[in-house]
Amino acid sequence: MAALAMGIDLGGTNARAAVVDRDSGEIVAAHKEPHRERSPAVVAETVARAVRQSGRAAGMEPVAFGHVGVGVAGQCLGRTGVVLNAPNLGWRDVPFGELLERALGVRVRIANDLSTAAWGEQRFGAARGLDDVALVFVGSGVGSGLILGGRLHDGHRGVAGELGHVKVRPMRPDTAVRRCGCGEMGCLEAYTSGMNIAARVREELTAGATSVVRDLVQGDLDRVNATVLDTACARGDTYARALWEEVADLLGTAIAALVTLLNPARVILGGGVILGCPELQSRVREVFDARVSRSAAAGLSLERAFLGDDAGVIGAALLE
Amino acid sequence: MAALAMGIDLGGTNARAAVVDRDSGEIVAAHKEPHRERSPAVVAETVARAVRQSGRAAGMEPVAFGHVGVGVAGQCLGRTGVVLNAPNLGWRDVPFGELLERALGVRVRIANDLSTAAWGEQRFGAARGLDDVALVFVGSGVGSGLILGGRLHDGHRGVAGELGHVKVRPMRPDTAVRRCGCGEMGCLEAYTSGMNIAARVREELTAGATSVVRDLVQGDLDRVNATVLDTACARGDTYARALWEEVADLLGTAIAALVTLLNPARVILGGGVILGCPELQSRVREVFDARVSRSAAAGLSLERAFLGDDAGVIGAALLE
Repeated sequence: MAALAMGIDLGGTNARAAVVDRDSGEIVAAHKEPHRERSPAVVAETVARAVRQSGRAAGMEPVAFGHVGVGVAGQCLGRTGVVLNAPNLGWRDVPFGELLERALGVRVRIANDLSTAAWGEQRFGAARGLDDVALVFVGSGVGSGLILGGRLHDGHRGVAGELGHVKVRPMRPDTAVRRCGCGEMGCLEAYTSGMNIAARVREELTAGATSVVRDLVQGDLDRVNATVLDTACARGDTYARALWEEVADLLGTAIAALVTLLNPARVILGGGVILGCPELQSRVREVFDARVSRSAAAGLSLERAFLGDDAGVIGAALLE
Repeated sequence: MAALAMGIDLGGTNARAAVVDRDSGEIVAAHKEPHRERSPAVVAETVARAVRQSGRAAGMEPVAFGHVGVGVAGQCLGRTGVVLNAPNLGWRDVPFGELLERALGVRVRIANDLSTAAWGEQRFGAARGLDDVALVFVGSGVGSGLILGGRLHDGHRGVAGELGHVKVRPMRPDTAVRRCGCGEMGCLEAYTSGMNIAARVREELTAGATSVVRDLVQGDLDRVNATVLDTACARGDTYARALWEEVADLLGTAIAALVTLLNPARVILGGGVILGCPELQSRVREVFDARVSRSAAAGLSLERAFLGDDAGVIGAALLE
C-alpha cells in the first residue's frame, strides 16, 4: 500500500486538502472548501472538513496521517504554528496551528505557501533532487521559497524568502515611493506584483497617460492586468514598454541578487505575471543575465514551475 | 586528551595553520609562513610547511588530523577543492585541494575565508549555537558567510555568500558605474570596500574635490583610507559626509535585503571598514533599520565579530 500524506493549501477564498502519495508525489484525492467566513476558528473548521473529506476519499481518517502540513498565503512563524500576517484572510498573529490541531486531533506543521510550493517542486517537480533551489513567484503578490542544502529554509522565525519585501527603491523624500500591502515603503512587490502593476496603470491612465491599454480594455480600467500590459508591449505601445523595462529591471536585479547570494542550482519561475507575460519574461531574463555574478550563474538553470497550483499542497503534505 | 583539528587561513601574503581544540575552539598551536612565491605548487608547499610546524608544536603529524580545512581569500568550487578565483594570489581555476592533498597526504576541504570565518563565529564566537547566521564583512573586500539551518551554506557550486558582487548600481549608459575587481560592473564591493573607497577618494581629490581629508593625510593621498574618511566625517567635512551617506545607503540596503531574504537570528559584522569606522557604522545601522522588513528584523541581533582574525582558521579546522 502506498504511504500517504495530507497537505493543505490555505488561501483567502478557499482551503484545499489533498492526499499525496509520498513516493510519487501524485495527488490521490483532494477536496476544496470555500471559506464561509474568515475568523480563525471557522477557517480551522473549514480546513478540518476539507481534510476529512479528502481523507475519506482515500479511505483514511485524519489521525491516520500522523500529521498534516499547511501552506498559508502569508507569513508564518515557523514551527510555532502562528500565522503572523495573512492579508487575504485579514489575520495577524493567529495561532492557527494550535486551532487546527485541536480541530483535527493531529500534529500540524505550517509554512508559507511559497515555501511549500518550492518544497513540492524540489521533491516532485521542476527541481527534483536538487539541493539548492529558489522558487521565485510573481503573481498577485511577489515572493520566493528557498530550498537550501536539501532542506526547506524558512529562517530563524520562519519568515525567510520574502523577496517581495526586499526594498528596491531609495527612500529619499524627492522620489515617488510606493507603499506596499505589508505597510512598508519601497518593497519589490509594490512595483512588480500583478495587483500593484494594475493599480499603478489605472492611476496613470486616469491621470491622462496615453496607451493602447485603454483600447485593449475598451475603456474599462477594472480590466487592466499584467496580461493586457504584455499585449500592449508586444504591439509596441510606448507606455507599456517603458513600464515593462522598469518592472523587468527591478525583478531581474532582485533575482540576480538572490542567485549571487545563494548560488542555487536552479531558479523556478512561477506566477501569472512572469509565466503569462512573454514580453516581460524575456526582459527579466535579459536584466538577470546582465546582473548575476558569473560564478553563480555558471551551472544555474531557470525553469518554469512544473506542478502549478498543486505544488503547494504536495509540498505541504511532504513537510518534515 | 583533547580532540584536535587543523585549520589553515590562506591569504595573499601568508598562510597560517592552527591546531584547534574541537571542544573549546581554542587555538593550541599556530604557525604562519609567508609566501615566497605565489605559484600554486609553491603555495601548497608553504601551506604544508605551516601545517607541519604547527602540528609539531602540538606533537602531531599532519596525517593524525584525518583531514585539514582551508579558508581561501577567493571563490572556491565547494567540495571539488578548486579555487575559481583568488585575486590576491593571482589564481584562476587552481585545483589547490588536490595539490595540498598530495603535499600533506591527508584529505583537504576548501572554502571561502568568509564562510570559514562565519563557521568559526557560529561554533565558538559571536553566534555560538545559532542555526541561522550571516557574517557580513566590510574590509579591503566585501562579502558574507552564511550559516543556514546550522550548516555552512556554500551553495550549488560553492560560491554562495558573494554579497560584495550583488549589483547595486543601474547599468544605464548615463550613470557612472564602477568596475569591480571581479571584472563585473556595479558590484556592491566596487563602491563600499576599503580599497575601492580609497581609490575613489584619491581620484576625486586629484580631480579637485575639497575635503579635510587632504589635510588629515598631509597631502599624501597614498595614506587615504576608510578610517581617515571616518575622522573627516566626525569633524563635519561635507565631502566625507556625503560619501559616507552614499556608502551607508548601499551597505545598509544590501544587509537589509540579505536579512529580509534569509531571516537569520544574527548578523555578525566584521572587517575594518565597518568595525573601525563608527560614523559609517551608525549610518549603516540607520539605513538597515529603515529598510529591513519588520518581520525578519524581529528577534534579530547585530553583533561585532568576536574571534577577529582567528575566526577563519578556527572555522576551517572545524569544517565538516
